[in-house]
Amino acid sequence: LSPKYTVAGVQDGSFEAFHRGTSTTKQYTALCCATLKGEKIVAINIDRILVDGLDSTNVMLNNLGKTETDVIILGGVTFGGFNVVDVEYVYNRTGIPVIVYSGYYPDMEATKNALCKHFSDWKIRWRRYEILGEIHEFESGFPHTIFFEFFGCSKEFAEKILMEQSITCRIPEAVRVADIIAKEVSSIFQNQGEYSGESLG
Amino acid sequence: LSPKYTVAGVQDGSFEAFHRGTSTTKQYTALCCATLKGEKIVAINIDRILVDGLDSTNVMLNNLGKTETDVIILGGVTFGGFNVVDVEYVYNRTGIPVIVYSGYYPDMEATKNALCKHFSDWKIRWRRYEILGEIHEFESGFPHTIFFEFFGCSKEFAEKILMEQSITCRIPEAVRVADIIAKEVSSIFQNQGEYSGESLG
Repeated sequence: LSPKYTVAGVQDGSFEAFHRGTSTTKQYTALCCATLKGEKIVAINIDRILVDGLDSTNVMLNNLGKTETDVIILGGVTFGGFNVVDVEYVYNRTGIPVIVYSGYYPDMEATKNALCKHFSDWKIRWRRYEILGEIHEFESGFPHTIFFEFFGCSKEFAEKILMEQSITCRIPEAVRVADIIAKEVSSIFQNQGEYSGESLG
Repeated sequence: LSPKYTVAGVQDGSFEAFHRGTSTTKQYTALCCATLKGEKIVAINIDRILVDGLDSTNVMLNNLGKTETDVIILGGVTFGGFNVVDVEYVYNRTGIPVIVYSGYYPDMEATKNALCKHFSDWKIRWRRYEILGEIHEFESGFPHTIFFEFFGCSKEFAEKILMEQSITCRIPEAVRVADIIAKEVSSIFQNQGEYSGESLG
């Protein structure tokens, strides 16, 4: 069965968690959009986002604008710590449905507590979680249930996409590839003392 | 027909050609090894190489050591200008056959002239071209003939690999993907005034 849909998977790089909030130094990590049709790479776009910043929505929109895609799958609604994506805004701007993937059942209570504790603008961030509504379960055929939310499409469409993207493992193929690339790019620049820190700001 | 071979494609990023040789500043670009089985991404490894340096062989070996692969396809025998790969050394160290892909018939006379003119160590570099021997033609089924050299395998094996890798276009799939990623990574850091220049040396 050949794949019907072009899918943009989005995932972030790693960063040094122990530096978070301990200084005034800005820390960045990579955000990778991997656009695939089935297993085939259509495009790769990489940019950086601010750890715990609020720029992931615009960075993603800027990257996605370069390639046509039928649907976006986020590897979580937040990247680079609590840099939460405004999924409603993404859909309103692009008309492209958004699926938020998770490998575990998200603990929304713990998330809200962490936001309230660490961010004076927690209401802006929390609203971006709330807008996603109910968390759904999905069986991909690979071991372990996955969880998803969606915006701008039906539940049936989201499930069809998740099934078509279950190729290598339960992680949607486009998210799996975006993750490999984002982690590789971010690790290079962390090892070289680059890509994080004020000097790039 | 499902793909049998795991293939590491290698390609370089872009760099500012007009800076070459005009200053004592070192310039770097990305070298990407994309390991694929058919269209499926198995691994992505990225590192940097010195433009017109001699480190591409070791950078590649270091990247390749992280992933098992049946064969290597280089998107040319030289990366980052005249940073020529020592294919014989790669094969002797790894036992993995190497195919050198080209989209055009290489002009060896012009290459030798450029090496002699610009590099006091031109004999070391030229030897790495010579070791590859004859240039062969191959029809992938897509428009335009491709050209290849090989080391450590038979011509028949090289042709079998090139045919299996002719998926999207005449460019071997692993080289096509390595190219997309290397160009994207290098362009980000050029735009930010990073990833090239002495400060990273």
